[in-house]
Amino acid sequence: MTKIKSGGVVPAEFSLIYRHFRPLAGPGALDLRDDAAVFMPPPGRELVVASDAMVAGVHFMPDDPPETLGRKLLRVNLSDLAAMGATPLGYLMTTAFPKGIDDAWVARFAEGLALDQALFGVGLLGGDTVSTPGPMTLSLTIIGHVAVGKALRRSAARPGDGVWVSGTIGDGAFGLRAIRGPVADADGFLAGRYRLPQPRVALGQALVGVAHAAMDVSDGLMQDFAHICRESGVGGVIEAALVPLAPITRAAAVGENALLPFHGGDDYELLFTAPDDAAVIALGMPVTRIGRVVDAGEGVTLVDASGAAIDLPAGGWSHF
Amino acid sequence: MTKIKSGGVVPAEFSLIYRHFRPLAGPGALDLRDDAAVFMPPPGRELVVASDAMVAGVHFMPDDPPETLGRKLLRVNLSDLAAMGATPLGYLMTTAFPKGIDDAWVARFAEGLALDQALFGVGLLGGDTVSTPGPMTLSLTIIGHVAVGKALRRSAARPGDGVWVSGTIGDGAFGLRAIRGPVADADGFLAGRYRLPQPRVALGQALVGVAHAAMDVSDGLMQDFAHICRESGVGGVIEAALVPLAPITRAAAVGENALLPFHGGDDYELLFTAPDDAAVIALGMPVTRIGRVVDAGEGVTLVDASGAAIDLPAGGWSHF
Repeated sequence: MTKIKSGGVVPAEFSLIYRHFRPLAGPGALDLRDDAAVFMPPPGRELVVASDAMVAGVHFMPDDPPETLGRKLLRVNLSDLAAMGATPLGYLMTTAFPKGIDDAWVARFAEGLALDQALFGVGLLGGDTVSTPGPMTLSLTIIGHVAVGKALRRSAARPGDGVWVSGTIGDGAFGLRAIRGPVADADGFLAGRYRLPQPRVALGQALVGVAHAAMDVSDGLMQDFAHICRESGVGGVIEAALVPLAPITRAAAVGENALLPFHGGDDYELLFTAPDDAAVIALGMPVTRIGRVVDAGEGVTLVDASGAAIDLPAGGWSHF
Repeated sequence: MTKIKSGGVVPAEFSLIYRHFRPLAGPGALDLRDDAAVFMPPPGRELVVASDAMVAGVHFMPDDPPETLGRKLLRVNLSDLAAMGATPLGYLMTTAFPKGIDDAWVARFAEGLALDQALFGVGLLGGDTVSTPGPMTLSLTIIGHVAVGKALRRSAARPGDGVWVSGTIGDGAFGLRAIRGPVADADGFLAGRYRLPQPRVALGQALVGVAHAAMDVSDGLMQDFAHICRESGVGGVIEAALVPLAPITRAAAVGENALLPFHGGDDYELLFTAPDDAAVIALGMPVTRIGRVVDAGEGVTLVDASGAAIDLPAGGWSHF
């Protein structure tokens, strides 16, 4: 099977897509003309690879702007690399498009990808383009590299570490609600945070040798912190009052949504633990200390200013 | 976003899938517990990567046996590596499964993959598992490696080369028709060839230094030969009588299906050109010489025993 179909007597949608995707080809992609891409990894570096998929109606709305859709797909994958401390290299993408997809739509989708390729220094290495009778389904595999043995792992948190996050938390969850209607978002900040997350690639690389454990926050802050604690065999405490919220998110986090910043998903900020506060601060990056790692026996808790545990809604997260 | 969800407070289908997929984790997969896989590529080798996607109702039938489905997905990707002369290393897989997918179905799907992992020496490195309201959609990225500068390319055919194929041609196309009903297939040979193609991984590696151009036959013999000729800037002649057909395929290639072996798809055999017949024969592999590479001006043709050009059905292929 070919990577991205290369014209000839292929259906019109393949030629169309090929026309838009070939300009995205990066070094090693062989201009998307061969069965596979070939590239030389940097000598002495380990490779870091991850894949994420998005389905219309599940992970995005069918009428989402195509420019941001390709960028979000690329960015959630870049966020996985960031969480490992890796440097991005390139990506492969498979697209299952509904038959008769509009040429202009694909052009805009590719334009968005081109923007982010320049921004993050990656190129398209290959992929596959198929048609589907169902919802649009996109899958991307990102490839990066890291110094040997230096990848940031979820399992490396140790009691006594500080717990940190980048950026602001909760914007993505409120952004989804803003797009759907019930949350006010006059200037589109929240919707923008949902549609165009900011993968913390530079921060991730800077954290190599500084952080112990790291991951990106995609399922929700407390769920993901619980992942780190479980994989590391530790407990942890997050102080709700320390979690950095954007002003509009703070304003929206009231009533039934008061706890959404702590269990809503789609932040794509980095969550990490580090033994030395000063070393983290010295990086000069937008990060905030929000808690501490403790012994496993103390469990994983979100606490209020008085130190009392806060229970999150069922289905969101429950401490254990 | 995580790779394959790791339990905790995740929906039941993720735990289910995770339970079946974790045993497939290969070296470097970090037991599928982290944001990405980390592995050291063999020193001094180039990496070879490709992706292929399959959609239920388009590339397979929803009631296809789950054991062969995962294996076919892996094998069509392995076939891309074979076409480049690469040695397989591992793979990432994203699965969009309909909600409420059966535990036993996923178990059988994973069992098939485990079989082929052992057969081809690859391990699961990561991926993503999502649900879809539409048809099952599967995507796989394969990673392999090859000696620097030695990858087999489509663009390397030269006038005077012999044209060769591995195995037998046309079985996959007749296999699809056998599964759908109109073609007889008493012992299931044809259906088996469609459902479980045989990626020519060992042959591909052996062809490094022996073949000029190579690709795998997935769109149909003449379409794919035309791809090689176009990318190489050459013409070519395939002699229909030399194309190796299995006995049951030869028997089925009559009437309106007489030319199907030459333009039907899903063979996943290797098509390659080589300057030295003796060097190819010395490999001792199941390959057949079917034609020759000529100058671009002579075009790309399928000819009968008298040397007369054979036209293929519209939509299949037309020479140019």
